Amino acid sequence: MNFSIIKRTIGSLLLFEGIFFLLPLVTAIVYWEEAFFAFLISIAICGGVGGLCFLGKPKDESIYAKEGFVIVALSWVVLSLFGALPFYLSGEIPSYVDALFETVSGFTTTGATIMPTGEAVEALPKSILMWRSFTHWIGGMGVLVFIMAFLPLSGAKNMHMMKAESPGPQVSKLVPKVRQTAKILYLIYAGMTLAQIVLLLAGGMPVFDSINTAFATAGTGGFSVKGDGMAGYSSYLQIVVTVFMLLFSINFNSYYLIGKGRWKEAFNTEVKVFLAIVFSAIALITAELTLTSVTDYGYTFGEALKHSAFTVASIISTTGFATENFDLWPTFSTTILVVLMFIGACAGSTGGGIKVSRIVMLSKSATHEVRRILHPKQVKKITMDKRVVEHEVVRSLNAYVIAYILIFVVSLLLISLEGYDFTTNFTSVAATINNVGPGLSLVGPSGSFSFFNDFSKLVYIFDMLAGRLEIFPMLVLFSPLTWKK
Amino acid sequence: MNFSIIKRTIGSLLLFEGIFFLLPLVTAIVYWEEAFFAFLISIAICGGVGGLCFLGKPKDESIYAKEGFVIVALSWVVLSLFGALPFYLSGEIPSYVDALFETVSGFTTTGATIMPTGEAVEALPKSILMWRSFTHWIGGMGVLVFIMAFLPLSGAKNMHMMKAESPGPQVSKLVPKVRQTAKILYLIYAGMTLAQIVLLLAGGMPVFDSINTAFATAGTGGFSVKGDGMAGYSSYLQIVVTVFMLLFSINFNSYYLIGKGRWKEAFNTEVKVFLAIVFSAIALITAELTLTSVTDYGYTFGEALKHSAFTVASIISTTGFATENFDLWPTFSTTILVVLMFIGACAGSTGGGIKVSRIVMLSKSATHEVRRILHPKQVKKITMDKRVVEHEVVRSLNAYVIAYILIFVVSLLLISLEGYDFTTNFTSVAATINNVGPGLSLVGPSGSFSFFNDFSKLVYIFDMLAGRLEIFPMLVLFSPLTWKK
Repeated sequence: MNFSIIKRTIGSLLLFEGIFFLLPLVTAIVYWEEAFFAFLISIAICGGVGGLCFLGKPKDESIYAKEGFVIVALSWVVLSLFGALPFYLSGEIPSYVDALFETVSGFTTTGATIMPTGEAVEALPKSILMWRSFTHWIGGMGVLVFIMAFLPLSGAKNMHMMKAESPGPQVSKLVPKVRQTAKILYLIYAGMTLAQIVLLLAGGMPVFDSINTAFATAGTGGFSVKGDGMAGYSSYLQIVVTVFMLLFSINFNSYYLIGKGRWKEAFNTEVKVFLAIVFSAIALITAELTLTSVTDYGYTFGEALKHSAFTVASIISTTGFATENFDLWPTFSTTILVVLMFIGACAGSTGGGIKVSRIVMLSKSATHEVRRILHPKQVKKITMDKRVVEHEVVRSLNAYVIAYILIFVVSLLLISLEGYDFTTNFTSVAATINNVGPGLSLVGPSGSFSFFNDFSKLVYIFDMLAGRLEIFPMLVLFSPLTWKK
Repeated sequence: MNFSIIKRTIGSLLLFEGIFFLLPLVTAIVYWEEAFFAFLISIAICGGVGGLCFLGKPKDESIYAKEGFVIVALSWVVLSLFGALPFYLSGEIPSYVDALFETVSGFTTTGATIMPTGEAVEALPKSILMWRSFTHWIGGMGVLVFIMAFLPLSGAKNMHMMKAESPGPQVSKLVPKVRQTAKILYLIYAGMTLAQIVLLLAGGMPVFDSINTAFATAGTGGFSVKGDGMAGYSSYLQIVVTVFMLLFSINFNSYYLIGKGRWKEAFNTEVKVFLAIVFSAIALITAELTLTSVTDYGYTFGEALKHSAFTVASIISTTGFATENFDLWPTFSTTILVVLMFIGACAGSTGGGIKVSRIVMLSKSATHEVRRILHPKQVKKITMDKRVVEHEVVRSLNAYVIAYILIFVVSLLLISLEGYDFTTNFTSVAATINNVGPGLSLVGPSGSFSFFNDFSKLVYIFDMLAGRLEIFPMLVLFSPLTWKK
């Protein structure tokens, strides 16, 4: 294990985190808030520790897959540990575990909160809210991808880190150089975020709200600056958010390809299946909401369509915003939402979940098996967009599913120690490991994660990180094999 | 597709079903019950239809994998369709869908019932109860395995059918000849059933109850002749049932090996892991039941141990007997039980679920992937009991898991159309696809499946068959590819 390169990368990461703190620091100045000092101290700590770690060029700069995975997992843990400082130091979140939960939920773009009520959220200083939303934006595209875009590192090393940090079963470089790819991705990301801010401002949303909402949408995070989430905004604003949640759920490669005029490649199988799932889910939920009389609601067709479109986009993109308390919707609709939580967004987007491309490949492998039984001698390979899916990819995919299920089951058992109902436990684990945010029952859109004890919160923290990094980096970090000489 | 051999096999199956009806027919004579006529007519129908199908020796006797899977799936469907006749004709279950549900639940050794209450079960004629329990015994070891043991069919053909009907990822022949293997398995099965009857009689259980209970235990089914399940019997009888539920969950190969003195091979990885899971689950549930004050119960340590041992054995063996309403137990305990439902028994036993050997192999494939990331050049194969698990087996295993999850999710969505709570829907699908019987909430040990509508019942019927036949035979039966020329 090349410890010196790990130390140096973590160091550069902390220095960058210090820079990230400048945005809320400026916000604190603008709004003349006491939290200014919390950010100042946090910057000093990150600068100091980061600088110490960064010092001294390592002799050996080689990063193998092993180091790549360890760096990525460790980076996210360290980033969260230090990112929690402002919440804690400002006294706004008095428990450090709570502050860590909120930070991990932010960086992993989960959006589950320990703020007990909507009023408590609105009472937070603007600078703290800004940092809370900004963590979504940083985490969405991947912080190491960001560093790669700006730090001069050699190509081969980066690929291992990018593989470990980027969501999806396969990582494809847009251009031969990893660094260039990272830059293009961040350009698309920033451009789309800016476009959303402009459209929100055009709809009369205040500047502060617009920036925060766009950060939370872009990262498919879900933290809101309002106590009632997105419910209080106009239909226009809700529709803008709906559209952008879906846009940020699509593989960013597609936007690059569209920019190059390669439309056919942009609308690949994954995008088509994703859109098919979205529209079917909206149609089914709209139908149920319109046809059945729902507790507390008497939707017109238009309202049902608007709310179901918003909620489906919010859940499949794993953002977690809410315009309505969908926990009160009838069971068929809520079950569809639970299924969407697991499916998640497209690979290479900022969304979480298992990812549509994985679902497609896995379904193909199952039908493939039936075909094998029927025609044992006609062995064909699984293809996706006319390209053969290599055996290695399928194997790794299957291992991912199994590891995912194992972590899910163990988490469910650990959470159930607290004795809450099965629906709460099941959907809270689903909402954290898939980086969605809200679940059903006690953790529904009107609920919060504040009532869990610290042990459960640590389980959720692990699940959010495992979900965002797609399991293996966290397993590598905790495997005794990694640390054995 | 070789239709003539399929027709002939189904024909022989129906003739055997006619013979199976003799046991409840004799019971009807003994207890002088009107249901006698229902069984007589059923025998006539099975004999007639079976005879017609059996007539005419097919020119081509070859059975390939395709025919093997179709025969197995179709056999189970036909067996159930005709097996429901006595329930329906006797008027005891007036709805044919209900009668079919009860029969499928019997043959697949699920044990979920549409009898609305315990009193309704006790009011059934003895001959009907006998048939109900006997379906468990017939389905437990596999009806085609039974036919193979008695009908002179050539070896190669049978292997495909045995593969498709026997539970577990791999089928190993005990002796070179399939027919001989089938005979040995049935000898062990019958011997153990007899041993249980004797031990139950020794504890003072009435003869009728003993035979029925042994049938339901041997097949790991769970239908009971008493309204309160196993709750009313003495501790001795409950312990006997506990032990036999566990014994019938272990691969029958192990008993053969023990008979041959090959103890080490008998206690293979699967058996060890199975026992480890059983004892851990009992310990954890006993601890929670003793430490927490449970609604309605105030268990002593001894009672907690007895009930948790019984319930763990009942659920992991997928029998589904109950001495206590475990739905009222605290969440950690019920969540463990839900997890056990999915794990299920050992391959090659009469129990259902995913099977312990699959869980072991899948876990190994996940840790294997971590090892690959750490040491990409040291590629080792997955082994089990020092034998390499072939790539084919792993691939088929993964496809099984995916198909299983897909069927689970689709079933969950279809069931949720009725609007019951998530816990009911989730555990009812889990209880049927894993052939357990009871779930939680509305389908808990004190509940029943009677309140679902016919559409949901048909979904459960599919799930029970898919679970018992381990997914692929049912998928092959319903795949358009199978029926395409």
